Amino acid sequence: MGTQPSWTDVASAARTLEGVAHCTPVLTSRTLNQIADASVFLKCENFQRTGSFKFRGAFTAVHSLGDEQRKMGVITHSSGNFAQALALAARLEGIVATVIMPEDSTPAKKRASRAYGARIVLCEPTQASRVETTHQEQVRTGATFVDSHDDANIIAGQGTAAVELVEQIGSNTPSPGSGSLPPLDVVLAPVGGGGLLAGTAIAVKHLCPASQVIGCEPSEADDAFRSLQTGQRIVDFVPRTIADGLRTPLGQLNFAVIQRLVDQIITVSEEAIVDAMHWAWERLKIVIEPSSAVALAPLLEARSRFRDARVGVILSGGNVDLDRFFASILERPS
Amino acid sequence: MGTQPSWTDVASAARTLEGVAHCTPVLTSRTLNQIADASVFLKCENFQRTGSFKFRGAFTAVHSLGDEQRKMGVITHSSGNFAQALALAARLEGIVATVIMPEDSTPAKKRASRAYGARIVLCEPTQASRVETTHQEQVRTGATFVDSHDDANIIAGQGTAAVELVEQIGSNTPSPGSGSLPPLDVVLAPVGGGGLLAGTAIAVKHLCPASQVIGCEPSEADDAFRSLQTGQRIVDFVPRTIADGLRTPLGQLNFAVIQRLVDQIITVSEEAIVDAMHWAWERLKIVIEPSSAVALAPLLEARSRFRDARVGVILSGGNVDLDRFFASILERPS
Repeated sequence: MGTQPSWTDVASAARTLEGVAHCTPVLTSRTLNQIADASVFLKCENFQRTGSFKFRGAFTAVHSLGDEQRKMGVITHSSGNFAQALALAARLEGIVATVIMPEDSTPAKKRASRAYGARIVLCEPTQASRVETTHQEQVRTGATFVDSHDDANIIAGQGTAAVELVEQIGSNTPSPGSGSLPPLDVVLAPVGGGGLLAGTAIAVKHLCPASQVIGCEPSEADDAFRSLQTGQRIVDFVPRTIADGLRTPLGQLNFAVIQRLVDQIITVSEEAIVDAMHWAWERLKIVIEPSSAVALAPLLEARSRFRDARVGVILSGGNVDLDRFFASILERPS
Repeated sequence: MGTQPSWTDVASAARTLEGVAHCTPVLTSRTLNQIADASVFLKCENFQRTGSFKFRGAFTAVHSLGDEQRKMGVITHSSGNFAQALALAARLEGIVATVIMPEDSTPAKKRASRAYGARIVLCEPTQASRVETTHQEQVRTGATFVDSHDDANIIAGQGTAAVELVEQIGSNTPSPGSGSLPPLDVVLAPVGGGGLLAGTAIAVKHLCPASQVIGCEPSEADDAFRSLQTGQRIVDFVPRTIADGLRTPLGQLNFAVIQRLVDQIITVSEEAIVDAMHWAWERLKIVIEPSSAVALAPLLEARSRFRDARVGVILSGGNVDLDRFFASILERPS
């Protein structure tokens, strides 16, 4: 799908998702505000169904299919959050979902998608095998391919988290006099394939045009940062980041939206990502995945960057493979 | 302190804690309700200040001190949550706190108490050294000893979590006709020293007398279970549980309250504790400590025990030493 989505699409996705996606809570933390010298509002998509914002886009895309397409099912390739998201979205709509997954995916990931009823087809852990296996299955089944990020419906769905965030903050903010104050000065969202950042930008720039929208990216997978700098979308790079959700190259459609609407991309070191994740688990007692930590890290790291600002952060998800940690726990002396 | 606390004390503690302790959220989970075939309400004291319910009792106790006592400070021995709780409570009241801690406590635990401003005095990792060092410091400083669990103020403070839980459920429940329906059929709370369970029982039996109150205890530290069975408080046992918060022997005062008001004690295996903790992290995306998991495990384990009941669960805290896990994360191939 090549059309750039608009605010109308995001608003329509928000209606589609009403009562289907969770309106996830917005957390605040006294300690975080002190550290960042700002008012920070954390939109907790780790509490979203399937554990990440991906469910929003997946359901929006599946819901948009016509009757003929529904009969043939949907297909995607993903080793991560989108697999689970599409699996649940399809199940809720009564559609068959096939997910192509590299054979070296963790047992936890295979388990999760199967639990939501998807048919898993394993492929070799190369991009070529992913594409080829997907193509074969698509030809065989007639299923509609749903791209995890570079698609107008997906972008529109992902934008609904920011819509809720702005509404939730607005209703928590005493408004002295007019409603002309922007509810947020800045919104931070992680960027990998770019669907979440693009959708967030469309929503925020419509609802509070004075707000900045900043993408946060691992410096070890900084294709969006460099693409914006050079004006050329970089697709040929080797991501070396722990933030597995952000290893995807920036999508074409997303690049166009981001170029138009996003103010800036900040890059974050691997150490800062792990530190921010550790901090959130230890201090906020919430499980966030490395990709979420990428959008939190700038607040913990550069302590004056957002001074006195009202900052929204999209914590994108909480899917971490805990098996190893829990195996080690049982080995502990007690 | 030897007086059994009453509802009046709990109600008074609730007023003391207003605006000081967090009114922690009550979480629900569609999946958990399906697994347990019940309506489950999780009172998230892992989100409490200092990461556990212990802050409630600590602040209540510190707040009750007279001017002379305040000048001399407070002292306790603890290697766990009570250390941090007393440290913060004392700091908020402008009082010096000394914490006696075994020298083999984890760096994370020492760090946490120091961060809240406590003076840490290390002792050898034996009960005798703890008691002796505490006594020496108490004599030297004139500080008031605050027991972590066997004290009327502590019990009253810990009971306020259940007060909030009952109020929060009540306000979320459409009440058809009269207010005579009990808002909860059962309340589960972990039991170690017994302060939380005793306080919970006082609160619940006053606010909804028809509700059952059930203590949950590791089978590897089942002194409360056996004490209730025999009618004799067991103090001589070697706890072998991962639930570090529940290794304390049942307090004398707490035993009396629990004997009088608690309906039953359920014991939980080590495997069930770790499984419940894993489940909460993975599915609810919240960090809970093993002691909290002890009260969640019966719902995940015995799937018909609470059929159709409205079940409140006190998730007591979220303080887990994450250092090792996060160290291992950075070693991951990316």
